[in-house]
Amino acid sequence: MHLHATGWFTEEWSGEGSAISFRLAHKLYEKRSDFQTIEVFETERFGRLLTLDGLVMLTDRENFIYHEMLSHPALFTHPAPGEVLIIGGGDCGTLREVLKHPQVQRVQQVEIDAEVTRAAERFFPLLCESNTDPRASLHFEDGIDWVKRAAPESYDLIIVDGSDPLGPAAVLFSEEFFAACHRALRSGGLMCGQSESPLFHMDLLAHVHRSLGAAGFGECRTLFFPQCVYPSGWWSATLGCKGGSIPDFRVEDVDRRPFETQYYNAEVHRAASAMPEFFRRRIGR
Amino acid sequence: MHLHATGWFTEEWSGEGSAISFRLAHKLYEKRSDFQTIEVFETERFGRLLTLDGLVMLTDRENFIYHEMLSHPALFTHPAPGEVLIIGGGDCGTLREVLKHPQVQRVQQVEIDAEVTRAAERFFPLLCESNTDPRASLHFEDGIDWVKRAAPESYDLIIVDGSDPLGPAAVLFSEEFFAACHRALRSGGLMCGQSESPLFHMDLLAHVHRSLGAAGFGECRTLFFPQCVYPSGWWSATLGCKGGSIPDFRVEDVDRRPFETQYYNAEVHRAASAMPEFFRRRIGR
Repeated sequence: MHLHATGWFTEEWSGEGSAISFRLAHKLYEKRSDFQTIEVFETERFGRLLTLDGLVMLTDRENFIYHEMLSHPALFTHPAPGEVLIIGGGDCGTLREVLKHPQVQRVQQVEIDAEVTRAAERFFPLLCESNTDPRASLHFEDGIDWVKRAAPESYDLIIVDGSDPLGPAAVLFSEEFFAACHRALRSGGLMCGQSESPLFHMDLLAHVHRSLGAAGFGECRTLFFPQCVYPSGWWSATLGCKGGSIPDFRVEDVDRRPFETQYYNAEVHRAASAMPEFFRRRIGR
Repeated sequence: MHLHATGWFTEEWSGEGSAISFRLAHKLYEKRSDFQTIEVFETERFGRLLTLDGLVMLTDRENFIYHEMLSHPALFTHPAPGEVLIIGGGDCGTLREVLKHPQVQRVQQVEIDAEVTRAAERFFPLLCESNTDPRASLHFEDGIDWVKRAAPESYDLIIVDGSDPLGPAAVLFSEEFFAACHRALRSGGLMCGQSESPLFHMDLLAHVHRSLGAAGFGECRTLFFPQCVYPSGWWSATLGCKGGSIPDFRVEDVDRRPFETQYYNAEVHRAASAMPEFFRRRIGR
């Protein structure tokens, strides 16, 4: 009953009775790190494909949507995002987008598995092109411990670019972790975390909203965007604001941004937080 | 190199080196009609699945997004959508949504293959629950001929709920067909057609915009929405207006609509036309 065929990579979407497959040219890399099995494939139509323990992380073809949506809405919403922390994000695609913002003075990225970043540097050089930016520092350790140890009120923005809430990454969706992020944020600071599929993981999204509230965050808002290679093809990120309401985003700064985007713009930013009716009924606002 | 396994239905996304699969409980139905092979499966997690010639048409679990987005934005945009024509739409899910609008006085649906509707009546009774509405008439013949023969200025809205532009359905994306629709629409009338994936079919979308313009339509606008079971998981519908600009939609009517929706609401309507940056650069406005 398993769905595997020569010449294809297949990810079964756990518990959802469905799967996505990519036709492969060949395997470029495989490494068992201390944490997981990292593989890189050359696909026929999606460029290179990175997987961790057999789960699709990204492809060359479509990662722009995810990386832009995990970074630019939050960065253009904070009035002055000087100090940024990224938890996870080992492929460095989010880091690259964050560093495009001239207001950013420092980005610390805390990824548990150095081997993911080593693989990204080798096989996804474009995503890593800003790793040597003097404002960036890459740390390879447990991001949850990092946040717990962080000085209070030390960050303007914390981005959580982690794995699915299965196994060790489950804690990234917990009230305890959100409370540690809340403590580490300055007043008016923002947290932005990937929050799974609105179609497949509505219970998790409701849990994220409840837990952010319980951890002390004021207004929370989910952004919706297509994600071709993740379960259901539809994904989300959820923003929380320390203290009060999420401010309007800096639309003039978006319109005169000093860098190109492929998906994100002011219209897309505004649209991304439109709540589908089933979501609105469950989460409300 | 083919990707098929016992207990799964797989659709290879033609030319895209990728595929989606559904774990099956069992096959419920198979019929070779004069036009195509119709199959219905019971899946493990998506309810029932309808396929035509091996291509996924819909599942119980997620068809609400597609059917709502192909109907409600157009119907709430037209100031008085009395006379509606649906080309294709044999599963009757779009027809059901259209008939929820009290302004609609008559809907003619022209589907080439009666066997698709017979299968839908039998296996997707919810989608067909309004087929006996006295305002509806179902015709089983060639929709393109129907539009060509239609009296000029006879419809307020034409919805094209057809197949991919491969084989006979290709003409549904042609300037000639759009010109026939334009002729059959009253002044201020709207056309709304499914227009494939923004990620996979950008060339087709550009062609649709050019052809609608060449056929005489004024403003054209693409709506974007998730579509879990179609290629890339991201889909679109494109609206064209006969004469001038697409009017603002009737937001008060949306807010006090006398029926429930699962995906669509006023916020979603507004958001759906936000153009991703790569689309804006190609199509502009």
